[in-house]
Amino acid sequence: MKKIINRASDVVTEMLDGLAHVHSDLVHRVEGFDIIARNAEKTGKVGLISGGGSGHEPSHAGFVGQGMLSAAVCGAVFTSPTPDQVFQAIKEADEGAGVFMVIKNYSGDVMNFEMAQDMAEMEGIQVASVIVDDDIAVEDSLYTQGRRGVADTILVHKILGEAARSGQSLEEIKTLADKLGKNIHTVGLALSGATVPEVGKPGFVLADDEIEFGIGIHSEPGYRREKMRTSKELVTKLTDSFQAKTGDKFCILINGMGATPLMEQYIFANDVASLLQEKGLEISYKKLGNYMTSLDMAGLSLTLIKLEEDSWQAALESPVTTIAW
Amino acid sequence: MKKIINRASDVVTEMLDGLAHVHSDLVHRVEGFDIIARNAEKTGKVGLISGGGSGHEPSHAGFVGQGMLSAAVCGAVFTSPTPDQVFQAIKEADEGAGVFMVIKNYSGDVMNFEMAQDMAEMEGIQVASVIVDDDIAVEDSLYTQGRRGVADTILVHKILGEAARSGQSLEEIKTLADKLGKNIHTVGLALSGATVPEVGKPGFVLADDEIEFGIGIHSEPGYRREKMRTSKELVTKLTDSFQAKTGDKFCILINGMGATPLMEQYIFANDVASLLQEKGLEISYKKLGNYMTSLDMAGLSLTLIKLEEDSWQAALESPVTTIAW
Repeated sequence: MKKIINRASDVVTEMLDGLAHVHSDLVHRVEGFDIIARNAEKTGKVGLISGGGSGHEPSHAGFVGQGMLSAAVCGAVFTSPTPDQVFQAIKEADEGAGVFMVIKNYSGDVMNFEMAQDMAEMEGIQVASVIVDDDIAVEDSLYTQGRRGVADTILVHKILGEAARSGQSLEEIKTLADKLGKNIHTVGLALSGATVPEVGKPGFVLADDEIEFGIGIHSEPGYRREKMRTSKELVTKLTDSFQAKTGDKFCILINGMGATPLMEQYIFANDVASLLQEKGLEISYKKLGNYMTSLDMAGLSLTLIKLEEDSWQAALESPVTTIAW
Repeated sequence: MKKIINRASDVVTEMLDGLAHVHSDLVHRVEGFDIIARNAEKTGKVGLISGGGSGHEPSHAGFVGQGMLSAAVCGAVFTSPTPDQVFQAIKEADEGAGVFMVIKNYSGDVMNFEMAQDMAEMEGIQVASVIVDDDIAVEDSLYTQGRRGVADTILVHKILGEAARSGQSLEEIKTLADKLGKNIHTVGLALSGATVPEVGKPGFVLADDEIEFGIGIHSEPGYRREKMRTSKELVTKLTDSFQAKTGDKFCILINGMGATPLMEQYIFANDVASLLQEKGLEISYKKLGNYMTSLDMAGLSLTLIKLEEDSWQAALESPVTTIAW
């Protein structure tokens, strides 16, 4: 393992200090916690929090700011944050109108966020949540019952963040989140596994001509190992996973897993554009980059949101002040 | 070599089509050329262009937009764009007040941009330029006479872009660029070399415990190969390269070379912050991310601009509408 770190046990705390230092104009680290919160003044609206294991940067701290998250809580690498950390994030995010939690569907996250919710409710803070499970590749994996939550989480942050900023109530945000949750789908592939600092070796190893389809964001295996193909062939295979009919309208996110050069991401995007056009689908919003990563994993995921409501697109396009959107 | 591409010979054209598709709200590809130009209406101000070999994404097309570049011209991977391509970019950028070119100090780039300047001047377009040579690690390398132009180019685009937007003349921008050029310094290190698609193997190979100091952005060797160290030790070594005295005020850029996770970049940033504070330097502006990359190279560079004028910082902080700033 060759990584620019000091001690493997210190990576999260040093990363958060570095992030808070570089972006001190936008966010701060909550004293004594692994939480990044926005500097913006509280205005009495619904707070929005998210988080999970570290190693997915810029998720989730990169999306803290006006119009997105109030705070992000950061566990150890690929490990759920503890309930007391999530509880503290809820308290930081509370402006009097309740707090909404975006939880990715991993057993540890779901359990710990829900325990924190109980703790907050006992102190009189109203809490609601959505469990994001957009990964259509694998059912019941190493860390999850049901489908995993992956890159679409970013778009959920953005759309719910805009709802919170516009003054929607906790109940309205819950209704929106549930509706949105039925329309988000992601599938990914990897060219290499990720190396967790405290483990020191990759979660899986692929040969020089091999790829893994259906990977998640924790370097857990996908559903099939196959020979490497051209970008066009990869796109064909991935897009076949989605249910869509001519005339459907989508927002798409092409997400780099961490070590994939933008050159490859844009070539992939070019093939996605051609193929979706051939299928007669309308793509009304596009986003590309490293948003929900898996440390040094090389790979990509493709996310589609079926646009049931035009307001979702407007929410994606609205301005924010975050580090990484 | 395992890359998400179709044919190695098509990577640049497919990448540019993908980029223009994803970001059609901000930029377009100039028909028949490897040029990305901004969509913004022309307002009679000085145009600003940059470019060079591809493989450094998001440089340079990611910095095309209002407040930064008018157009970026994109050569083959790690290869200078041809004079006719640069000439076309000058014509695209011309709004009647002349065009300023930001050239990184590589022999091919300097020659081809200057030939294009001659062609433009023969058609009555006023052209001026600056040669960026911020890399203090190596003098006279594989591609360069003198010092190489690396990550600081991004900050130069931003500061000159703001000058152009604010209506400064070609002459004023030239004066500013020359002053700025004396105050920018960068030094980098690599954990792995980059693989050019048409070559199919890395420019250099490092052992599992080796790093290369003083690398550029073309996977050319640096000045010394050494054993891997902790982030703190790497920062100490890199910052020793800079000339600075207590009380000096700087803007800094921590730049990922492409495959280095944000986690490592922020840990490095945390150590940079401590060390520069110990040295009594004032850091008034900070930026971090993958801005001037070298395909799939893992590594980092550290850039310092000595702030001779406060207006430089204001220019760095001004808003832009680009893909990647």
